[in-house]
Amino acid sequence: MANLTEFSLPDATAVLTRPPATLNALLRGLPNLWVRSHEGRSGEGKDTWSAFDIVGHLIVGERTDWMPRVRIILEYGEARPFDPFDRLAQSKEDQGKSLEIDQLLDEFARLRQENLAALRSLNLQPRDLARRGVHPALGVVTLSQLLATWATHDLTHVHQISRVMAYQYRDAVGPWSAYLGVLRCNGHSAP
Amino acid sequence: MANLTEFSLPDATAVLTRPPATLNALLRGLPNLWVRSHEGRSGEGKDTWSAFDIVGHLIVGERTDWMPRVRIILEYGEARPFDPFDRLAQSKEDQGKSLEIDQLLDEFARLRQENLAALRSLNLQPRDLARRGVHPALGVVTLSQLLATWATHDLTHVHQISRVMAYQYRDAVGPWSAYLGVLRCNGHSAP
Repeated sequence: MANLTEFSLPDATAVLTRPPATLNALLRGLPNLWVRSHEGRSGEGKDTWSAFDIVGHLIVGERTDWMPRVRIILEYGEARPFDPFDRLAQSKEDQGKSLEIDQLLDEFARLRQENLAALRSLNLQPRDLARRGVHPALGVVTLSQLLATWATHDLTHVHQISRVMAYQYRDAVGPWSAYLGVLRCNGHSAP
Repeated sequence: MANLTEFSLPDATAVLTRPPATLNALLRGLPNLWVRSHEGRSGEGKDTWSAFDIVGHLIVGERTDWMPRVRIILEYGEARPFDPFDRLAQSKEDQGKSLEIDQLLDEFARLRQENLAALRSLNLQPRDLARRGVHPALGVVTLSQLLATWATHDLTHVHQISRVMAYQYRDAVGPWSAYLGVLRCNGHSAP
């Protein structure tokens, strides 16, 4: 096992700056095959998301999840649990269906930039990182865990987007599918 | 199940243009925590790669694998099998250890651009996509399968990089690890 990584605010904010430009470079202007296709499963709790849906989900997180929870920890501590995060909110926004991926990428970049500016303006000190809040399902969490999760949540969705895109070529690759691990990934969703 | 995707050269080349800028946006200038750390397993056949190692591997593919194999199919068909691809070549290059990630990203971008220009200059026609070659382990493959695999191979390594980066925060996220699928991904390596 590698050594455990200690959380540091500069390391976390460095990686949090990257996903908007990363997804922009990967997705802007691509044919709909890559942007709007998903993995074809649907039904109770099993809907699969396209890259378009996933960027929509990241936008909802910027609006309703990460910085609002930072502020709840700083203002209320354990006295007020976080609001639950609606993982499916992006699919309920009627306007979402008529947007193009380029507009979503712009919106994600704008919101992330605003949120990182707001984070910096809090001028968090090392002692603040241990401050505690209450997650509605997980219980007590710390500010550093929230910030590490924000960064890791981006990465879990980069992981998902690469998988959903690769899935579109699961047959086109022919016998090479045996060598392409991403084609054997089922997503590791929580049970 | 979604409908199967038919291979098209414009769709494949569209996605093949993206990984150099995608990885550049994700990795350039990041702290070594994100670029040089891996998943900590080592030993016979189990070495784990850092983002740095993975970009090195993509460079080796540009040099020795994809376009050379395209040319073998077009020139020799099934009469000459491909040369085997050395998956570990990047770790054998002495100079590799002293390079910075920024240099590797530049090299990957340069080689991919050259290779896509060479691919376009072949002016492949739909009938060419069915031409056949011989993989040293997998047997008969077609040109379209080779090109689809080139694109999917990029995606399997974007998938891997996001997983290796997320692994660094596997403890920092605390109880949120239950919700982050990327932390439960073991990589789906071929047996």
